[in-house]
Amino acid sequence: MGLIVQKFGGTSVGSVERIRNVASKAVAEFKAGNQVVVAVSAMSGETNRLVGLVEDTSRSYSKREYDVVVSAGEQVSIGLLAMAIESLGYKARSYLGWQVRFLTDAVHSKARIREVEAFRIHRDLKEGCIVVVAGFQGIDPKGNITTLGRGGSDTSAVALAAALKADRCDIYTDVDGVYTTDPRMVPQARKMDRISYDEMLEMASLGAKVLQTRSVELAKKYSVPLRVLSSMEEGEGTMLTGEDETMEKVMVSAVAYNRDEAKITVLGVPDHPGVAAAIFGSLSDANIMVDMIIQNVSESGETDMTFTVPKGDYEQALSVLAGPVKEIGARTMKGNPEISKVSAIGVGMRSHTGVALKMFKALANDGINIQMISTSEIKVSVIIDEKYTELAVRSLHQAFELDKEVGDRVGG
Amino acid sequence: MGLIVQKFGGTSVGSVERIRNVASKAVAEFKAGNQVVVAVSAMSGETNRLVGLVEDTSRSYSKREYDVVVSAGEQVSIGLLAMAIESLGYKARSYLGWQVRFLTDAVHSKARIREVEAFRIHRDLKEGCIVVVAGFQGIDPKGNITTLGRGGSDTSAVALAAALKADRCDIYTDVDGVYTTDPRMVPQARKMDRISYDEMLEMASLGAKVLQTRSVELAKKYSVPLRVLSSMEEGEGTMLTGEDETMEKVMVSAVAYNRDEAKITVLGVPDHPGVAAAIFGSLSDANIMVDMIIQNVSESGETDMTFTVPKGDYEQALSVLAGPVKEIGARTMKGNPEISKVSAIGVGMRSHTGVALKMFKALANDGINIQMISTSEIKVSVIIDEKYTELAVRSLHQAFELDKEVGDRVGG
Repeated sequence: MGLIVQKFGGTSVGSVERIRNVASKAVAEFKAGNQVVVAVSAMSGETNRLVGLVEDTSRSYSKREYDVVVSAGEQVSIGLLAMAIESLGYKARSYLGWQVRFLTDAVHSKARIREVEAFRIHRDLKEGCIVVVAGFQGIDPKGNITTLGRGGSDTSAVALAAALKADRCDIYTDVDGVYTTDPRMVPQARKMDRISYDEMLEMASLGAKVLQTRSVELAKKYSVPLRVLSSMEEGEGTMLTGEDETMEKVMVSAVAYNRDEAKITVLGVPDHPGVAAAIFGSLSDANIMVDMIIQNVSESGETDMTFTVPKGDYEQALSVLAGPVKEIGARTMKGNPEISKVSAIGVGMRSHTGVALKMFKALANDGINIQMISTSEIKVSVIIDEKYTELAVRSLHQAFELDKEVGDRVGG
Repeated sequence: MGLIVQKFGGTSVGSVERIRNVASKAVAEFKAGNQVVVAVSAMSGETNRLVGLVEDTSRSYSKREYDVVVSAGEQVSIGLLAMAIESLGYKARSYLGWQVRFLTDAVHSKARIREVEAFRIHRDLKEGCIVVVAGFQGIDPKGNITTLGRGGSDTSAVALAAALKADRCDIYTDVDGVYTTDPRMVPQARKMDRISYDEMLEMASLGAKVLQTRSVELAKKYSVPLRVLSSMEEGEGTMLTGEDETMEKVMVSAVAYNRDEAKITVLGVPDHPGVAAAIFGSLSDANIMVDMIIQNVSESGETDMTFTVPKGDYEQALSVLAGPVKEIGARTMKGNPEISKVSAIGVGMRSHTGVALKMFKALANDGINIQMISTSEIKVSVIIDEKYTELAVRSLHQAFELDKEVGDRVGG
């Protein structure tokens, strides 16, 4: 007998019919002898509807009131789910963020959870209830309603699992697990049985949107066994665990890609102190995140500096940089939004060599030019022309034999 | 400078446009130098939508969860209204039932307010905020969400006004005040400037659905000056006050009607103790409310007993009564759902005579047969054939000269 936290997103509770399906999944886990806590999002479309009302009402709304309005969605889904569980003949009780309570900071619309009180839930579990909890929302120290930002329900579920010391946190989604790469792009992509928190973090930050990054960070911090699985199909999904528990240290576990970046190069930058601060300070002041940065070794007294920014911030970045580029005496600036980042990810890289080499060879074989390279302990990323994205992903997926079971791979 | 509580119902906040209108009314009161607290219902249609979701989910839902779901509606309207006020350049802050807090009993779906904590609101008012509060909802002693039942927002507003010791509670509705009778039925009906709490209570319980009865009872108990006025049109509305404050003691203030009752007669009832208990006990067990009861003086050893029940409970009442009627040895039972109740109401009746006489004469002149009569200190009610309802209302309205200003009336 264990304690399981289940989390269902908006699509999984998108209709009364689907809420009944969720109820039966919660009840199945309960009948298997477990204590069950279910965290849910608002019914799909509901949060968008509420945000639409907010935007119709006021162009410069206060975020405190925004949080009041948009957090109404989960209130409906938790009540309906509790009813659906009761109608199957089991005890259920629903709680909003302020009732649990999820204590957060006061940063409205993207609050961070500081603490989860769990005693009410433990009491109800002891009484044989299935407990239903609203994801996405909490209260700040003054008792105002806060929300955690899009995808925040994943984080609610993991924080709850950590506070309850749950044996497992099951995140039900519209995919049946985490794949070696995007299966829409590579039909041979394989669902992984296990993946480490760190690998998942790299994948999430690289644009594989299965789990919210913060929820994975939290799971890692509190060692919460986290499982991603489908709410529609049967299956074991993918288990996220600490590195020690991964079965085999494969060199590369997955290939991820991200088309959401643009590249900017500042040419003829005088090579003296303060130059980088002028460039990146201006981007930081404009709240533009910089991802990869490359600067070649300078011999001539001037250098070229290249970096990437989110594609949505590309135009703003160019206009923000115009002043500083002139002031530091750089020759000119050019940019290209038509790029993509392709990455090979694997905790095994720490103990293996040759990943970068294998990657560059595979891309060269397919005639794909590498514009930038960036590496971390568990990933190698390259920037390439956007139009080669699919080709590169397929090529790397094959080069690292990700279509094969781990034991059947010849290389690394 | 005073403290004004305003209450707006679902129709008044039924769209973003209308919410802006409500915001401007709150701001106007604030600019006039008053502290302003606004209680609002859910946007019209929203509570029905939520109840529909509940009924689709489960046929035998728990009322605790029902309250969780249906109270989500006000959360949206209060946030939007606060935003709309802010967008006019004024400070606003919204509160849900649990934040204010409205402390209620634990009778889900029709809870009663026990206490309203007002210190947060007083603090915000001192800071120059317009405070927006969710009507209809509260929390029970265990912190569960409760709702007050349909029309409960009126009660929320009055309870809030009592707790805040407000100078006035303005209930904005879709009518511009309380009329001497239904203006759709009698074009000469006059809007009253003032009416006593007691008269309003009789009118509300007789089917004039301007205010929820409990809100009027509460206003009377705490002497809250209560005003009913239109949210769409300009106008002073109707002021509800204690009897002492009414300007002139008119005999009859208004004529009300109610088509929602049905009549049942038990014929040939043996005239001995326990008979009435058998009949009304069975109705009480079935939760059927009995309104008027008439029993003629018996000389023959048996009697006829007539009473009225809500029209919706008519069929059930007949089937519930079949057993007891047989057991007590009554001859037979007959019923008629096609009746209506017409009433003349006025606090002046206490000190005047002749109201009943004038009423019976007016009805007789129009050939309307009176089937039953019932009187209280401030009203005389008659049961007549339903098809004469409009004729009777018009006839009484004219007989008591309600179309004239109070000072211009000859009779009374």
